[in-house]
Amino acid sequence: MDDRWFRGTLHELSPEECLVLLADKQVGRMAYSDEAGPVILPVNYAVENQSILFRTSAASSMAMHLRDRTVAFEVDDVDEVTESGWSVLVRGTATFVQPAGGADDHTLPTPWPQGSRNLLIRITPHLVTGRRLLAG
Amino acid sequence: MDDRWFRGTLHELSPEECLVLLADKQVGRMAYSDEAGPVILPVNYAVENQSILFRTSAASSMAMHLRDRTVAFEVDDVDEVTESGWSVLVRGTATFVQPAGGADDHTLPTPWPQGSRNLLIRITPHLVTGRRLLAG
Repeated sequence: MDDRWFRGTLHELSPEECLVLLADKQVGRMAYSDEAGPVILPVNYAVENQSILFRTSAASSMAMHLRDRTVAFEVDDVDEVTESGWSVLVRGTATFVQPAGGADDHTLPTPWPQGSRNLLIRITPHLVTGRRLLAG
Repeated sequence: MDDRWFRGTLHELSPEECLVLLADKQVGRMAYSDEAGPVILPVNYAVENQSILFRTSAASSMAMHLRDRTVAFEVDDVDEVTESGWSVLVRGTATFVQPAGGADDHTLPTPWPQGSRNLLIRITPHLVTGRRLLAG
């Protein structure tokens, strides 16, 4: 099954490296569970004091299933030409941030799509891990 | 909080469009749950008869937590310059494929990293959904 001569090598990233990479992107992916199992959805996010901030609608399925739950948040960068890249995984607890508190305006994430997303959610990390795949 | 004049519009994708987009990529993201909650990890994958095939090591945490479970698999494409993109979400059941059965050799996914990944896993979809974000 392994028919190529040169394949990449995986290297663990330090938490510090993960935070630098997290600060460099605008879109990550949230995983949470609803009644039917896990879901993954892309979100625009911002990083503030090592926690992840993103916005959703209070009426969204995500809002109904995230509050005070353990979630996963992933950011990655993939190069299909060189077959290399990196990924960072944040595991933590999602909490609703009250309006006018908890987050500075300049760190608020700005969703790309139209529509009201006035619920601000913070993921406070329990564990931040990452891997870099160097080209073979 | 919404300080830009032009923001993108979200459009639902048909299942047929989702399958075309799935066939076009090499890396997706698996979400499953272990004892501590959800996890998201990137994997190389292939599409066969509308199901998702990927490989892992039989000793991996993923292998230990996926068998016959409901999982989520996500593929996306994001353009940070135009603030547009698409995402496809496959929700389904993960089953272990026995060696020498169930998948044609030419549809086997080839992992980019080094290392033995001899466990072939199939995700049989219950639901395939997707969205395209058109630039504002």
